[in-house]
Amino acid sequence: MNQSVNKKVVHVGVIGAGGRMGRMLIEAVNDNPKTTLNAAIERQGSSLVGADAGEVAAIGRLDVQIVDDLKSVVQDIDVLIDFSLPDATEQNMQICAEHNVAMVIGTTGFNEQQEQVLAKASEEVAIVYAGNYSTGVNLSLKLLGMAAKAFGTAADVEVIEAHHKHKIDAPSGTAYMMAEAVAEARGQNLKDVAVYGREGQTGEREAGTIGIHAIRGGEIIGDHTVMFIADGEVVEITHRARARMTFAAGAVRAATWVIEQQTGQYNMQDVLGLND
Amino acid sequence: MNQSVNKKVVHVGVIGAGGRMGRMLIEAVNDNPKTTLNAAIERQGSSLVGADAGEVAAIGRLDVQIVDDLKSVVQDIDVLIDFSLPDATEQNMQICAEHNVAMVIGTTGFNEQQEQVLAKASEEVAIVYAGNYSTGVNLSLKLLGMAAKAFGTAADVEVIEAHHKHKIDAPSGTAYMMAEAVAEARGQNLKDVAVYGREGQTGEREAGTIGIHAIRGGEIIGDHTVMFIADGEVVEITHRARARMTFAAGAVRAATWVIEQQTGQYNMQDVLGLND
Amino acid sequence: MNQSVNKKVVHVGVIGAGGRMGRMLIEAVNDNPKTTLNAAIERQGSSLVGADAGEVAAIGRLDVQIVDDLKSVVQDIDVLIDFSLPDATEQNMQICAEHNVAMVIGTTGFNEQQEQVLAKASEEVAIVYAGNYSTGVNLSLKLLGMAAKAFGTAADVEVIEAHHKHKIDAPSGTAYMMAEAVAEARGQNLKDVAVYGREGQTGEREAGTIGIHAIRGGEIIGDHTVMFIADGEVVEITHRARARMTFAAGAVRAATWVIEQQTGQYNMQDVLGLND
Amino acid sequence: MNQSVNKKVVHVGVIGAGGRMGRMLIEAVNDNPKTTLNAAIERQGSSLVGADAGEVAAIGRLDVQIVDDLKSVVQDIDVLIDFSLPDATEQNMQICAEHNVAMVIGTTGFNEQQEQVLAKASEEVAIVYAGNYSTGVNLSLKLLGMAAKAFGTAADVEVIEAHHKHKIDAPSGTAYMMAEAVAEARGQNLKDVAVYGREGQTGEREAGTIGIHAIRGGEIIGDHTVMFIADGEVVEITHRARARMTFAAGAVRAATWVIEQQTGQYNMQDVLGLND
Repeated sequence: MNQSVNKKVVHVGVIGAGGRMGRMLIEAVNDNPKTTLNAAIERQGSSLVGADAGEVAAIGRLDVQIVDDLKSVVQDIDVLIDFSLPDATEQNMQICAEHNVAMVIGTTGFNEQQEQVLAKASEEVAIVYAGNYSTGVNLSLKLLGMAAKAFGTAADVEVIEAHHKHKIDAPSGTAYMMAEAVAEARGQNLKDVAVYGREGQTGEREAGTIGIHAIRGGEIIGDHTVMFIADGEVVEITHRARARMTFAAGAVRAATWVIEQQTGQYNMQDVLGLND
Repeated sequence: MNQSVNKKVVHVGVIGAGGRMGRMLIEAVNDNPKTTLNAAIERQGSSLVGADAGEVAAIGRLDVQIVDDLKSVVQDIDVLIDFSLPDATEQNMQICAEHNVAMVIGTTGFNEQQEQVLAKASEEVAIVYAGNYSTGVNLSLKLLGMAAKAFGTAADVEVIEAHHKHKIDAPSGTAYMMAEAVAEARGQNLKDVAVYGREGQTGEREAGTIGIHAIRGGEIIGDHTVMFIADGEVVEITHRARARMTFAAGAVRAATWVIEQQTGQYNMQDVLGLND
Repeated sequence: MNQSVNKKVVHVGVIGAGGRMGRMLIEAVNDNPKTTLNAAIERQGSSLVGADAGEVAAIGRLDVQIVDDLKSVVQDIDVLIDFSLPDATEQNMQICAEHNVAMVIGTTGFNEQQEQVLAKASEEVAIVYAGNYSTGVNLSLKLLGMAAKAFGTAADVEVIEAHHKHKIDAPSGTAYMMAEAVAEARGQNLKDVAVYGREGQTGEREAGTIGIHAIRGGEIIGDHTVMFIADGEVVEITHRARARMTFAAGAVRAATWVIEQQTGQYNMQDVLGLND
Repeated sequence: MNQSVNKKVVHVGVIGAGGRMGRMLIEAVNDNPKTTLNAAIERQGSSLVGADAGEVAAIGRLDVQIVDDLKSVVQDIDVLIDFSLPDATEQNMQICAEHNVAMVIGTTGFNEQQEQVLAKASEEVAIVYAGNYSTGVNLSLKLLGMAAKAFGTAADVEVIEAHHKHKIDAPSGTAYMMAEAVAEARGQNLKDVAVYGREGQTGEREAGTIGIHAIRGGEIIGDHTVMFIADGEVVEITHRARARMTFAAGAVRAATWVIEQQTGQYNMQDVLGLND
């Protein structure tokens, strides 16, 4: 097949194939018409090594056996998706850099040395590295910055997030990211202006503050609303996550994008073309 | 009564005719096709005594001069609307009881003695006494009680209110009333279950609690949402006040209703037929 | 196990155990601490007859074999849940009436004769018969009637529903039920007052009409909002279905309620105590 | 007056000073700390000529007499705000161009010749020309374009607008502008993809279409929501106008901006810095 550029299929490898996120990534690779699963990796000693990756993900046989060594399959893939742990990802970055394989990384918690490995690897290959791969969340962060600049201090900003009753901390990381996007665009430090909850004799609202409210209940996956409340009008930007699958699908979208890029480090806003 | 029932006009008197609420009441009496303003009363010494009540309310001449003595006009009215102060209302209740004039009272902060005067007066005449005369708020309170009973402890309840940036306390009185309606229907004491704001390591949501969140910004007149969040579904009841005039219109609606009632004390839910 | 009266377990049978709704009912019976699955029935000839009901429902072995004959297991159950087809349900009602087994019926499309069988059966046993077993939807219908009565013609009513992109008709059945609840409470015939979509020179809104709007997109399970828009305030009642499981859970809740009732026909509002 | 550059006060003239929009513009000029009213113009023959502009606007005496000839006051102003009719604005543009006075134009319905006059005038002076001066609406239009590009065809788009019961057409002009912002960003022609209302056997939602829904009721000033509904997440951008004054305030903000610009034609997105 003297391949048509448009139909070029991206060969993807997935780290942590037996974990919860790994299974969703495998399903998302299978769902995306531009990608095909060519490798699935688990840690040494996992009972799933040798099993079919599709059957583990409950989407039917894919004829891709789970292996425990990235090196043994790295030549079969164009891009590696890695949502695992810092130490494992550190090794994987080195292997991908050597073998000229692009990466989509969702691992969090890198230490300084691991950040340096990332920086070096991205001199050799193109790497997308993001804390959240949802199109909607990344879009919302971009929109919030623009809204904050347009309104300046003429609008009062309030962030309201809602999550399931099992969540043990508040506010959500995404709510913080949103509030920070507003604060940054207004030249503020979020710590100086955040207000969590109001009760009693609060006095008038202080201009420039950002109220942050955490609703908890039922099985809500994650809703976020940011209100810009000016005197005569209100603008609200709302994101509702309805299925966790959306994060896996975003990572696979990033995989189809990253293989077209030059070496370097990118984030999800780059993938979505929001920084053009 | 050989009057045409349909066109019977209710003759209304308004206490505090020169105040902010009094002016709105006068406008609402004028707007309601079933009511006509026959008396407008201000405190002794007000510079508005002698002025035309309609011109003071900026709705054009009504040929009703503001007076400073209820007794001088009580025989001209069927019902008195009184949103003033406890001491003034105490005297007005006694005068109305003597002259067989029904009342609609929005005054708050009665002490024990004044409550007794109210109880006695309502043995003589029909009195509507409510903290909030909005149709929507009273309806919402009723709906909240029903929802709380239907869901029981199977739904997590969260109350979110939003008011203008000038408001100096939180949450709003209406938000408390709504949370109490839920707590009461579930056999709870609000103080034991209310949660104001969440930040940090909160742990899982405790079953049976009621979250209350106060948003502040711009010139929002008053929005309230109560969420019943069950595992697989959510019911939300929302009230939005778009104009303060709605409270005055509700009081005038109560005035047209109370003159048809037997002696006794009623609330706005009675007026709206929500307790039938 | 010499269990206490309070912990009395309700023995449930499920019709159509291999179907999509049947599997969810089996899972819901298993999840509810008051119920246990004692019988699972499929149509004759199904390849699932003989299989374990729990394994078919993908919730693990329950040691309840799927059978093809209700009569063979009817003595093992207190209540039968039947979401199937009119002809099958007709026979099941007769069998349950003979064996003194209560029923929860979600089958739709009964003809006149089947309605009579239902009426007769409910002289012998207690039967819950409803088109929708969601707590939230039934609650909302009740609230809508109350709101419509409280506002009368003083509020303009608009219904907005949202469903996934695959839905082939509009508006949803639930949206119709909600609009009818409003129309009925106002003494209207929905057909006379419904307005679907507005475009072009529409003229002013006609008082008493009910606007109905159908949003379609993505994988939305089902959201419904009814707005009561008065001049100075708005009341909104919103229902959001987040998981289809909620309908099965409601049916199982009805099963735990119906076994305590005297013979007769009940609906879901009775189960929820909304008609007390 | 040797004031500092930062506190430089902008001298503003307002066309149509006796009209509804003119009065709001005068109030907005008075409210904005950076602007002062120096001229107020009405058409020849108006009974308001000679009256004080502030008293006409019901905000108290401003010592600015309404005149009927722009030429007599043009030397007193830095910028002219003109929300009137095309023929009047055509003349005003010529006068301002001659006298080097910047303009903020809200007049709609220019013919081809008037467009040319605008083009020529903007070679001489800086002119802001926009159909809507609300910060929130212009911001929303910008955000909608970005969201449409980020989601591409992966999200279904639905526009929902709500206006008061007196509005005689549907959908609103702003709803059209919003839908067009989405269509344009996706390379579509709105006419080909707009769907107004859904009823009956509609079939599945066609990819790429834009649903537009018009809610009518009460006294709603104007709410607009655009939903981007992807399979696993939803982004909503909502604008709520709470007071018509916001449009006048936006025009005055444009006046403070335009006097700093070089000659040329600008729109409100330029004023808000959204095109940087």
